[in-house]
Amino acid sequence: MIKRSRKSLETDRRSPCPVACCLDILGDRWSLLVVRDLMLGRDRFRDFVTSPEGIPTNILSERLERLLQHDIVEQIPATDGTKRSAYRLTKKGDALRPVVRAMRDWGLKWEKGTRLLA
Amino acid sequence: MIKRSRKSLETDRRSPCPVACCLDILGDRWSLLVVRDLMLGRDRFRDFVTSPEGIPTNILSERLERLLQHDIVEQIPATDGTKRSAYRLTKKGDALRPVVRAMRDWGLKWEKGTRLLA
Repeated sequence: MIKRSRKSLETDRRSPCPVACCLDILGDRWSLLVVRDLMLGRDRFRDFVTSPEGIPTNILSERLERLLQHDIVEQIPATDGTKRSAYRLTKKGDALRPVVRAMRDWGLKWEKGTRLLA
Repeated sequence: MIKRSRKSLETDRRSPCPVACCLDILGDRWSLLVVRDLMLGRDRFRDFVTSPEGIPTNILSERLERLLQHDIVEQIPATDGTKRSAYRLTKKGDALRPVVRAMRDWGLKWEKGTRLLA
């Protein structure tokens, strides 16, 4: 991973609007699903891959990289004795709970047939 | 505009998860900025174009079409006597306020240099 400077991340912004900046980082179909998975206790690459939406592994790698660069996710040693690492939300990532919850509540209320994952 | 059936919109879903369904519709860099603009009182195509992020007109047309299809936005006659229509949020669209607010709050707290639009 090439660690990009905070300055370089900031100059990619389209405007100083906080909603736009949030979407600069997380505005796609997959990133917030990885955040959702982490909130649900999934923490391994293979866990994210086996989520029902079926994220392609190349997209998942790219999204995890971006989440790491923006300090939303961090890598930690796996607890199962393997050498593969696990992921967890940083404080900044955990602070996305209200965003994910608001989306969940909106979906449950307005999109017929939606239901919480087991 | 080709009005798609609710059934056809639902089969485009990746899973029944309400967060995923929300992102199926709104998971991109622009859609929620149009919703933000509508919440800020902007209601014309040209208003969205002149927002600081500079949305390209072809993308804006496509996103407005999708927001109309999903009953998030509706067209209304313009109040300035011209024949061009304006847009407003439906009840379902207005219910996205908590999502946009949560993103705003997250951006303001965690992304340095962000500020509210005038």
